Amino acid sequence: MNIKTVLITGCAGFIGSNLVDYILSTTDWKVRGIDNFSTGRSEFLFQALQNSRFTLLKQDLKEKYLIIDEFEGVDCVFHLAANADVRNINEDTNVDLRENTLVTHNVLECMRSKNVKKIVFSSTGSVYGEAKVIPTPEDCPFPRQTSLYGASKLACEGLIAAYSELFGIQAWIFRFVSILGERYTHGHVYDFYKQLIKDPTSLRVLGDGNQKKSYLYIGDCVRAIMDAVEHFKDTVNVINLGTNEYCCVNDSILWIKEFLEVNPKIVFTGGNKGWVGDNPFIYLNTDLIRSSGWVPSLTIRDSIIKTLSYLQSNKWVLR
Amino acid sequence: MNIKTVLITGCAGFIGSNLVDYILSTTDWKVRGIDNFSTGRSEFLFQALQNSRFTLLKQDLKEKYLIIDEFEGVDCVFHLAANADVRNINEDTNVDLRENTLVTHNVLECMRSKNVKKIVFSSTGSVYGEAKVIPTPEDCPFPRQTSLYGASKLACEGLIAAYSELFGIQAWIFRFVSILGERYTHGHVYDFYKQLIKDPTSLRVLGDGNQKKSYLYIGDCVRAIMDAVEHFKDTVNVINLGTNEYCCVNDSILWIKEFLEVNPKIVFTGGNKGWVGDNPFIYLNTDLIRSSGWVPSLTIRDSIIKTLSYLQSNKWVLR
Repeated sequence: MNIKTVLITGCAGFIGSNLVDYILSTTDWKVRGIDNFSTGRSEFLFQALQNSRFTLLKQDLKEKYLIIDEFEGVDCVFHLAANADVRNINEDTNVDLRENTLVTHNVLECMRSKNVKKIVFSSTGSVYGEAKVIPTPEDCPFPRQTSLYGASKLACEGLIAAYSELFGIQAWIFRFVSILGERYTHGHVYDFYKQLIKDPTSLRVLGDGNQKKSYLYIGDCVRAIMDAVEHFKDTVNVINLGTNEYCCVNDSILWIKEFLEVNPKIVFTGGNKGWVGDNPFIYLNTDLIRSSGWVPSLTIRDSIIKTLSYLQSNKWVLR
Repeated sequence: MNIKTVLITGCAGFIGSNLVDYILSTTDWKVRGIDNFSTGRSEFLFQALQNSRFTLLKQDLKEKYLIIDEFEGVDCVFHLAANADVRNINEDTNVDLRENTLVTHNVLECMRSKNVKKIVFSSTGSVYGEAKVIPTPEDCPFPRQTSLYGASKLACEGLIAAYSELFGIQAWIFRFVSILGERYTHGHVYDFYKQLIKDPTSLRVLGDGNQKKSYLYIGDCVRAIMDAVEHFKDTVNVINLGTNEYCCVNDSILWIKEFLEVNPKIVFTGGNKGWVGDNPFIYLNTDLIRSSGWVPSLTIRDSIIKTLSYLQSNKWVLR
């Protein structure tokens, strides 16, 4: 890869900021970060901002017909800016369309305008809806969407592939399971931890606790992204990211109880879904990414414990 | 189907106006039509406007956060409003996103607001991109998009399926091949006819003429839609519409020459695609729609001749 300068949208987010740090520490690339700081946190860029190869632009990518000068001279865009809360659905059905689909179109237009020819995109295993094949491979039967979040990410994938066809852009599209680890600030492990430090005697659990979940450690995630971009050379590369294991929410509760040395009363809200549109089971076939030589370093249990340790040492992220 | 009132968006378009007439003549439903008349033509509603069960609203569905009172009391929306020109890509990359994806979201929001629980949607065989399985079934391997038009229709399908999951909406999503017949006003048969009445001695053909094309007659299309809505009762019904045959552009040129009794010099622009992003071959497996009992009444050749006869008797549509 003949890369000198990359641009990372959502650079102050969970995955974005970890990717910034990983790229700065493993390459000699210049990194331009963009974030609107709606959910991203400047504290996550503490290390990066001390590096002279990193520059930061505070910019909202939702602006219509936006062409950003910072795309000039960029060799590859890592487009991670997105609405990250999968569950915020019934209040505002427009949020995923606005923050994912339209923002991705803006990013592609910036790339086209400034002649940027590579994009890395963070999609989601949610695009498989209620998958008929589990573990789900990238070329599973044409899925049906079950969430506005998944639908918006699918729309982004479609836009990227079409731009690739029309304008000669090379793309790496990653379909993630949920990610855990340092700077993780949403999702059920975070919610459970927050509840338990407030009241260690009681834990409210959405659904019945039997929802199966697959997780990947953030360090393994950013390493997989970089390995895949180096390894896969198709025009459009669609790659699942996850581990070969899964757990139940109830398993994770056990591990969390053990680690925090608490024994709360568990109150289940009932039903087999955490929320309407929640997919009971996203478990991805990861043969493709493993064919690059990549293997995850942490089990789900270890990545949950790593996450809890991080939250314990960084209580400010709970604010 | 317990239906009394339906609403048809894009009611003055090619498919929309034919559906309006078909519904008025085969049911006792009240039909509310919406069109912004950007490409729709009021002449196509000549018959409908004489029927007391038909009402027309001139309205652009692109307006943001639009809630339209006409959705009140509607039992089923037939959402056909769309950017119809698949080829208008390099000039404005935003048009499909704006006129298909965002408009479909607006329509779904109107439905949610007014408690409409059924939607029929005109998608496209273009969502299969360069299909790996031909004839392509509805559950083919997860496709890659090759056009902004297909990507936008896929985004619409995703939105509709997600709304179905979240808000209890029942959906019929039709993936069409190209449609021919009365009121057809774009596509290669139209272009060829227009060229040949201007100059019968010469015909300019995009590509090399070997592009394979599958077509369906508009009368068979609207009948298939109505039959399918009656027959298929899943929450989200995805249904291919096409015939069991295909032709080459060169075949169609022969039939057109025969029918018009002209013998032009054919000038090929070359290449195996009509335009960048054109799919050389959309040929759909139609076993599912045929399982409802529906069969097409016209061959491709007959539907091309029917189209030419219509254009000959209605030269005003060429203006």
